[in-house]
Amino acid sequence: MCESCGCGERTLRIEVAEGLLSTNERLARENRAWFERLGVRVVNLVGSPGAGKTSLIEATVKALNDLRVAVIEGDPETRRDAERLSRLGIPVAAVTTGGVCHLDARMVHRAFHALEDLRPEILFIENVGNLLCPADFSLGEDLTVVVLSVTEGEDKPEKYPQAFRRARALVLTKVDLLPYVDFDTEKVAELARRINPALKVFPLSVKTGEGLSPWLDFLRSLL
Amino acid sequence: MCESCGCGERTLRIEVAEGLLSTNERLARENRAWFERLGVRVVNLVGSPGAGKTSLIEATVKALNDLRVAVIEGDPETRRDAERLSRLGIPVAAVTTGGVCHLDARMVHRAFHALEDLRPEILFIENVGNLLCPADFSLGEDLTVVVLSVTEGEDKPEKYPQAFRRARALVLTKVDLLPYVDFDTEKVAELARRINPALKVFPLSVKTGEGLSPWLDFLRSLL
Repeated sequence: MCESCGCGERTLRIEVAEGLLSTNERLARENRAWFERLGVRVVNLVGSPGAGKTSLIEATVKALNDLRVAVIEGDPETRRDAERLSRLGIPVAAVTTGGVCHLDARMVHRAFHALEDLRPEILFIENVGNLLCPADFSLGEDLTVVVLSVTEGEDKPEKYPQAFRRARALVLTKVDLLPYVDFDTEKVAELARRINPALKVFPLSVKTGEGLSPWLDFLRSLL
Repeated sequence: MCESCGCGERTLRIEVAEGLLSTNERLARENRAWFERLGVRVVNLVGSPGAGKTSLIEATVKALNDLRVAVIEGDPETRRDAERLSRLGIPVAAVTTGGVCHLDARMVHRAFHALEDLRPEILFIENVGNLLCPADFSLGEDLTVVVLSVTEGEDKPEKYPQAFRRARALVLTKVDLLPYVDFDTEKVAELARRINPALKVFPLSVKTGEGLSPWLDFLRSLL
């Protein structure tokens, strides 16, 4: 038996992690009550770096221009995506996590103080680019949406099941690239539904506009 | 001032995180001494889900068939990538982290027990698909390589600087898709070198074989 294989800290780590998660759950419930009081629908977008989350929000905001939309934009560093979305003329609160790998309920709570007076009807929260950690932290959202690009490979639902389990919808982005990659949207939709049978799946391209309408209809149906 | 904005747990979280990181550093130093004793070069591959890490290892192993190569394969769930690499006839140790977002030095230590008697000359460690958390955990590797696909967007070095800071090389994968995406490899190489001036950059496609040779030469130069 090798000395390095003791596991004392592991137990401590698990206890602390559980404490943090239960604190987060409490704050998330408070957020949810706050959102309900104001009548805002909150959509938490989760996906890898480069999955196309910001582009999806951009195209969605442009199309939903009859609604009051706001965004909380989470990034490990830089406020670039927040600035990009601000140029659409909508309110955007930037959360720079300083390298932290997910948003938590507290960060969202603080950011929403800057937005509540604007009474948005829909709030999009763009989580930090990461398919793992954000799945553990409820933010008080109405629904989580997984954003997965067709360039990422067909195995992602099985390798990252927790995010798919939490989600109500899966957006498959960049379908304009389907002719050049090995990715079968039907097959991936089926793999994802094995994990979460109620999952709604929206294959689309913000570049060509293909598939945007069903996604927009879905968002409107939440109001 | 809002009640939810207290930050007692945050301090605790930081202290525990620092404790975990210093334990990890100690174990990583032990790993490094072990690897040096055996004369194995250890390459830690870090990148988003779907960046092409497994495909890069696959193509690299096939090309370096005169060397003794082994792989430690980290995944949050499933052993699929490990099985895929085993079919190349090389020793592969699978680490399934159960949702944990990075490999740590202890996981690598345990996995390497299964490989040391095979006396590999190069050990590839495929980290969990995540551009954030793996950058905080040294594994005792000789070098870290960031794997970034050209479909992920040009802003990744600035948004995920820690991984680029740690790395000695950056592999830009899927360059066969460059005609269909907005991605300038020169520009991204420059952005990455602003963070880490010594970074070596290898644009390549395992699908067409373009750009593989300089990457293989680089790996051979480590021996």
